Amino acid sequence: MPVITSRDHPLIKRLIKLEESSPYRKRTGLTLLDGIHLIQIHCSILGKPENLIVSESYFADTDNKHFMDIIFGYKPPKITIVGDSLFRAISPVKTPTGILALISKPSLQEKTHNRKEVLSVLLETIQDPGNLGSILRSAAAANASHIYLSKHCADAWSPKTLRAAMGAHFFLHIYENSNLKQIAQQFPGTVIATSIQATKNLFEISLAGPTAFLFGNEGAGLSAEMIQAAHVNIAITMPGKTESLNVAAAAAICFFEKVRQDKYSSLSSTIGTK
Amino acid sequence: MPVITSRDHPLIKRLIKLEESSPYRKRTGLTLLDGIHLIQIHCSILGKPENLIVSESYFADTDNKHFMDIIFGYKPPKITIVGDSLFRAISPVKTPTGILALISKPSLQEKTHNRKEVLSVLLETIQDPGNLGSILRSAAAANASHIYLSKHCADAWSPKTLRAAMGAHFFLHIYENSNLKQIAQQFPGTVIATSIQATKNLFEISLAGPTAFLFGNEGAGLSAEMIQAAHVNIAITMPGKTESLNVAAAAAICFFEKVRQDKYSSLSSTIGTK
Repeated sequence: MPVITSRDHPLIKRLIKLEESSPYRKRTGLTLLDGIHLIQIHCSILGKPENLIVSESYFADTDNKHFMDIIFGYKPPKITIVGDSLFRAISPVKTPTGILALISKPSLQEKTHNRKEVLSVLLETIQDPGNLGSILRSAAAANASHIYLSKHCADAWSPKTLRAAMGAHFFLHIYENSNLKQIAQQFPGTVIATSIQATKNLFEISLAGPTAFLFGNEGAGLSAEMIQAAHVNIAITMPGKTESLNVAAAAAICFFEKVRQDKYSSLSSTIGTK
Repeated sequence: MPVITSRDHPLIKRLIKLEESSPYRKRTGLTLLDGIHLIQIHCSILGKPENLIVSESYFADTDNKHFMDIIFGYKPPKITIVGDSLFRAISPVKTPTGILALISKPSLQEKTHNRKEVLSVLLETIQDPGNLGSILRSAAAANASHIYLSKHCADAWSPKTLRAAMGAHFFLHIYENSNLKQIAQQFPGTVIATSIQATKNLFEISLAGPTAFLFGNEGAGLSAEMIQAAHVNIAITMPGKTESLNVAAAAAICFFEKVRQDKYSSLSSTIGTK
């Protein structure tokens, strides 16, 4: 099979642009999945991707070939082989996995059947793709259904966010450029804002019924407007001398306090103060 | 003041090496703090750093100068000014803050007074500096005291880990290259291993008394040896279709379940199954 080694090859140029440019990803509706694990999840939920880009040494490894046979069966996607050093240049990570898939962003209709919003997440100007991906991953694990992103959030479908979310995208309804205030007003349950200044404590409120958590920017936190739009404002008790959490860590704590209360509902009703 | 613009300047070479090389940081006992926020925390706990490296435009900004006056008072550290494009080259981040401090890693004796180990953390081969930093940050917020890292963990004192931990380092006793098995055996309380295969659930066990949580590598999880070294093995209930959490998210959930139970001890005793 021919091996692409030139940075000037049209496909390579396109891949680099997809890697780097959020507007280009939005315009084309395309993105890149990095690593066989993400690609495998895509296959099981949305089917095989159309194009794989594989490094020369990845393709030469018989273990990898065997694994690809298992995942893709007798009708594999189109495979393009790229020289190792060029592959490193197009890969978003320092130690590339050796395999990328070029995919169309799934439309919301393609996602799992419509689900009730028992746990939803509203994100205001989250900047870091790693944080955003980690929030999506925790949300999916906690069985959240809908994720709403304000304007100026990191791109939910960037390769970095996708990698950090480990497949969570394919189980969630993700709405970018949302009007969070309107969504909070229409949410059929309790909207909970998280902010370090709040006087109520996460562990003291009841999270029974549909719940939407609101998280703000890594530096600035939630805007005053969104704090007002919420029904309840909570902080997470922090007994330590440092009093701040990474937003993805805070989100995980909130989501799994909801999971805990839902599973041990007798407890949540005894401590509910809502 | 003179502005350094050459990559060949001995200080610049040293800063790049400190940024990139963990062995060099270990040999010299030095590291870099990125951003005024981290530097400010260092000042309040351990005193002023000796050397600041500031970008030309950062130094030209009167707001920044004013802020530096507030933090450092009339006896500021030595300031070296570096041209903007060179500063970008030595900075570990894409959008540099414009200020770095060259510091000595504090010795364990310099840390806050000795504390009982009520909440400790054992980390086996955690690879990602962002994850490691986030775990340290959550641990400090949850009032953990001791952190033990196995061999082959990411460097706890790398600029990336420091940035993700947001000052947590200065409140924790951090032991690198630890023999985790021995530490688990000698720990004066319950040692809890977290693994996805465990049948017990975090939310069903009592976390009363001194507790040490054990977390494993991002990909491989904990080794069989460390799972055996623990008193209890737990998983975090995940009702969603994806069943995995980022290790830093899992750690945050565990630490704050301990915080919750300690604060609402009547609850923890009613559901304790330990």
